[in-house]
Amino acid sequence: MEITRKDLIDFKERKFPKTICFNPIGVIHSEFKSLKGIPIQSSMSESKGSIEIFPKYSDGLEDLDGFSHIHCIYFFDMVKLPVPLQSKPFLFDKNVGVFSMRTPFRPNPIGLSILELLEIKDNMLYVNNLDILDKTPVLDIKPYVPQFDNRETNKIGWLTGSIRDKVS
Amino acid sequence: MEITRKDLIDFKERKFPKTICFNPIGVIHSEFKSLKGIPIQSSMSESKGSIEIFPKYSDGLEDLDGFSHIHCIYFFDMVKLPVPLQSKPFLFDKNVGVFSMRTPFRPNPIGLSILELLEIKDNMLYVNNLDILDKTPVLDIKPYVPQFDNRETNKIGWLTGSIRDKVS
Repeated sequence: MEITRKDLIDFKERKFPKTICFNPIGVIHSEFKSLKGIPIQSSMSESKGSIEIFPKYSDGLEDLDGFSHIHCIYFFDMVKLPVPLQSKPFLFDKNVGVFSMRTPFRPNPIGLSILELLEIKDNMLYVNNLDILDKTPVLDIKPYVPQFDNRETNKIGWLTGSIRDKVS
Repeated sequence: MEITRKDLIDFKERKFPKTICFNPIGVIHSEFKSLKGIPIQSSMSESKGSIEIFPKYSDGLEDLDGFSHIHCIYFFDMVKLPVPLQSKPFLFDKNVGVFSMRTPFRPNPIGLSILELLEIKDNMLYVNNLDILDKTPVLDIKPYVPQFDNRETNKIGWLTGSIRDKVS
């Protein structure tokens, strides 16, 4: 199906939204049934599990099995808002701004994990590297493409010296 | 400020959400005033611009200037829903599933771009590599950390052979 202009709103109707709402497209099945022991990053996890994509979205999975990794975007549904804008991250001993860390406790509690995609069966994605609580609502899946997504940099702010050089 | 258990909802109250709503934390200022000529990936763009973080969230930017790159998560507000679950991507000549491509036309129109962070002045982030329409609502900013975010893989599905080897 070709996407055409009619799939866009009219520029004249464009208004900056106060609220933006989404419907979950799926749900995480992981071994992490409580908040204890969840790895702090997917790159540090060897935990396997699955992402159930709701059947009405199954057709959107076509060709995804050709990719070894995915971006999983999800909702930290356990977070109570509002959150503090600065707090002490796990790997550091002073407060930093919420946008300079990866904490779930964010003004918009959106999570981003890069997961290895092991297999797809019907509407189930079997994945590795899970760092996500069981029953977490999933918002989007995108293919991971190193040519688009890898950046070489050593400038990692307050994290300098506090993470192992290479974890993956 | 230490985050404690009271910042979480009670597990007993946890219910899978039908709808998930967010408030934008900022807005994109880019040279792309219409949909023509927007680069298809941030890794292919040298366009500079800014992200205005709304003043109420400014304190969340503390220490972000130590990072050279950021993940910017935003809302494709021009997309009219529902979208087709399969369509022809820009770099290919057959239909593929929406979750195996990076099109804005997604069930939840969430965008993800990795941007170079040039400078922060007050609540303005000056950035490079913009591939985002002007006035786009921003949902979240996270630091980019290669030790967390880089994956080595050659398995890139239908994109194999259709993108330049290294673009960054």
